[in-house]
Amino acid sequence: MAILVQKFGGTSVANAEKIRRAAETALRAHQDGYQVVVVASARGKQTDELIADAKELNLAPPRREMDMLLTTGEQQTISLLATTLWGMGQKAISFTGQQAGFKTDDAYSKARILEIDSKRILEKLNDGYIVAVAGFQGVNAVGDITTLGRGGSDTSAVALAAALGAERCDIYTDVDGIYTADPRLYQKAVKIDTISYDEILELANLGAGVMHGRSIEVGKKYDVPIYVRSSVNDIPGTLITHEVPEMESILVSGATIQKDLTKITLIGVDHKPGNAARIFAHLAAKRVSVNDIIQTEVSPEKANLSFTVLHDDLDVARQAIADIRTEVHCQSVMVREDVAEISIVGVGMQSHYGVAETMFKALADKRINIDSITTSEIRISCLVDLEQAEKALVAVCDAFELDKPAVERQMK
Amino acid sequence: MAILVQKFGGTSVANAEKIRRAAETALRAHQDGYQVVVVASARGKQTDELIADAKELNLAPPRREMDMLLTTGEQQTISLLATTLWGMGQKAISFTGQQAGFKTDDAYSKARILEIDSKRILEKLNDGYIVAVAGFQGVNAVGDITTLGRGGSDTSAVALAAALGAERCDIYTDVDGIYTADPRLYQKAVKIDTISYDEILELANLGAGVMHGRSIEVGKKYDVPIYVRSSVNDIPGTLITHEVPEMESILVSGATIQKDLTKITLIGVDHKPGNAARIFAHLAAKRVSVNDIIQTEVSPEKANLSFTVLHDDLDVARQAIADIRTEVHCQSVMVREDVAEISIVGVGMQSHYGVAETMFKALADKRINIDSITTSEIRISCLVDLEQAEKALVAVCDAFELDKPAVERQMK
Repeated sequence: MAILVQKFGGTSVANAEKIRRAAETALRAHQDGYQVVVVASARGKQTDELIADAKELNLAPPRREMDMLLTTGEQQTISLLATTLWGMGQKAISFTGQQAGFKTDDAYSKARILEIDSKRILEKLNDGYIVAVAGFQGVNAVGDITTLGRGGSDTSAVALAAALGAERCDIYTDVDGIYTADPRLYQKAVKIDTISYDEILELANLGAGVMHGRSIEVGKKYDVPIYVRSSVNDIPGTLITHEVPEMESILVSGATIQKDLTKITLIGVDHKPGNAARIFAHLAAKRVSVNDIIQTEVSPEKANLSFTVLHDDLDVARQAIADIRTEVHCQSVMVREDVAEISIVGVGMQSHYGVAETMFKALADKRINIDSITTSEIRISCLVDLEQAEKALVAVCDAFELDKPAVERQMK
Repeated sequence: MAILVQKFGGTSVANAEKIRRAAETALRAHQDGYQVVVVASARGKQTDELIADAKELNLAPPRREMDMLLTTGEQQTISLLATTLWGMGQKAISFTGQQAGFKTDDAYSKARILEIDSKRILEKLNDGYIVAVAGFQGVNAVGDITTLGRGGSDTSAVALAAALGAERCDIYTDVDGIYTADPRLYQKAVKIDTISYDEILELANLGAGVMHGRSIEVGKKYDVPIYVRSSVNDIPGTLITHEVPEMESILVSGATIQKDLTKITLIGVDHKPGNAARIFAHLAAKRVSVNDIIQTEVSPEKANLSFTVLHDDLDVARQAIADIRTEVHCQSVMVREDVAEISIVGVGMQSHYGVAETMFKALADKRINIDSITTSEIRISCLVDLEQAEKALVAVCDAFELDKPAVERQMK
């Protein structure tokens, strides 16, 4: 029998009615002949409430203890889901991350899955149970509870689907799929039917916020089709899958905006081999994630080095730079917090020219100044003034006709 | 270094302020030179709320899933306690029942501890940590989470104190010790300084409600001094310990009332060997706890058999009796729900005469009718009308001078 993994996020299990609906969804798939594993997040705002409880007692709660605390949220949801299924006459059993066999490393609050020993799950599936698994969590070698970081339930679900050889991993959420752009910022955005792992990965990393980036990496690595769909209706959602030939005929799949960025520029760094590497190695050691690196030579001896970091990482980044500044002979540091990044993503870009020009022209036509540009194989990003960011997004979406279904945009 | 186990009940960790106070209590003991293990219950009314959440989804939630659900409460408390201690500059670590090494049988919702593997706790104590352990919970052989039943955190604490060879187990609660009678019913009640395991065990089983009966059995078996004290002030509490000679000079240590009882009488049961055993074995098989058994011969062939059960067990008891009624030729069944039991407890009774007479006279003087009487070595219980029960308690307390400190009652 084919296995189906269904993941329900916090908003999809926020109250008794929604838990009942999630249980019905699982039961329906079971009745359709699937062996069903449900992966669930903590109910509603519970994780935030627990974080607040901890911070009331200690402004810098230790990570191991936070993992101990937060994992209770998912544990509650899965036992309630199993309880609900029993009430519907369906055999069900809940498993914590540990019981489900999620073995992770020791990085509390952002652990990585090392291995999933799915023996108990398979046993129960073969006995006709629906298995409810706590997302977001695992256990390290000494038996301590770890979490995969916020949004980690997506990763739990996709990784489990991979381990079980599931036919598909359905991600139930409060939106009915992935849109060409955030509909709150671009009202004319349309739903994407199919998108590649690479594109959604870029969108996720650029703050599109629908799926957890790491879960997409896992899906790509193990070839797990991921279907993002609504937990409240049966409208078709968005299938995330491997790149298929049709995708290349679509120039741009989606556009996104990332607002929580700070641009840091190190001015007058000694222009000699290894200096840039030294700076970024030091930032990485401090766990600061750096993007959009641009180096410009200002003289034969000096260069400026700019990059973006998340607002949340700014304090750590400043300290890290202060540590290393003298060593690289940096003359001054400039920090701009009022920036945002507009990006377009599409596998079609790989084989088409003129995409960047279309984007720059769209921005220029609206008199939006581009601070800097970075690109990858399938993405182009422009840093713009924060206050012009939403206008910029709309201009770019219009330029690439992201208000039209993909079929209409093909091969133009 | 001596080990001290401190147990904080739900009311003693109900909010941030109380958690902070519990952490301070643990820290003080640590600074006094103890190695400290804190065992905690779920915060405030959380367990009740989680039960309500489950019942909203399934009126008969499966026990395994309830254990999965309810154990999250303690897990939250211990991580918050450890977090608070770190904030106070003290190394601390929280352990779930499983991590603390509590191995239990499979009886979900009322599991028994089979073994405590306290290796990890000892390691951390020796490293200078305060260890916070989730009460009430353990893990069975297949790795499923079990609970010890309501009030089981007391048992966790005392059993852990035994396993660790602790000097003492302190039970912090919202009362400042154990009283000669419930002060809400007998305003003149006084606090007991020292009481034996056997006495407190009788009082617990008679519904005195201060300590979980099983925890006292464990304390007695492994000789763990248990100190019941207030979590809000430093007033001396009540020490539960082995019987010491002085105790015998006190006739009656305490009196109690149990109201949630039903008296069941099987009328005209065939009076032949094995019939009573058959009935009680069947009730035991249905997990009905039976007390105060009295058999009276009404003819050479027939006997009446009466006993009490808890209100909660009444439905199961009725069904069990219906199953077996024909077999034992029971003519009719009488059920009285309007009864209560008044009991006095004291190791001094063993060597003194006239205690029962004093009790009966006290009740007779107040024109309280005694339905039936049962006794043990250290207890006398009288079943009375429910509506006369509180008056009966006061009469008995006055007769045995339970309004005076023990020293004044000695050797009268």
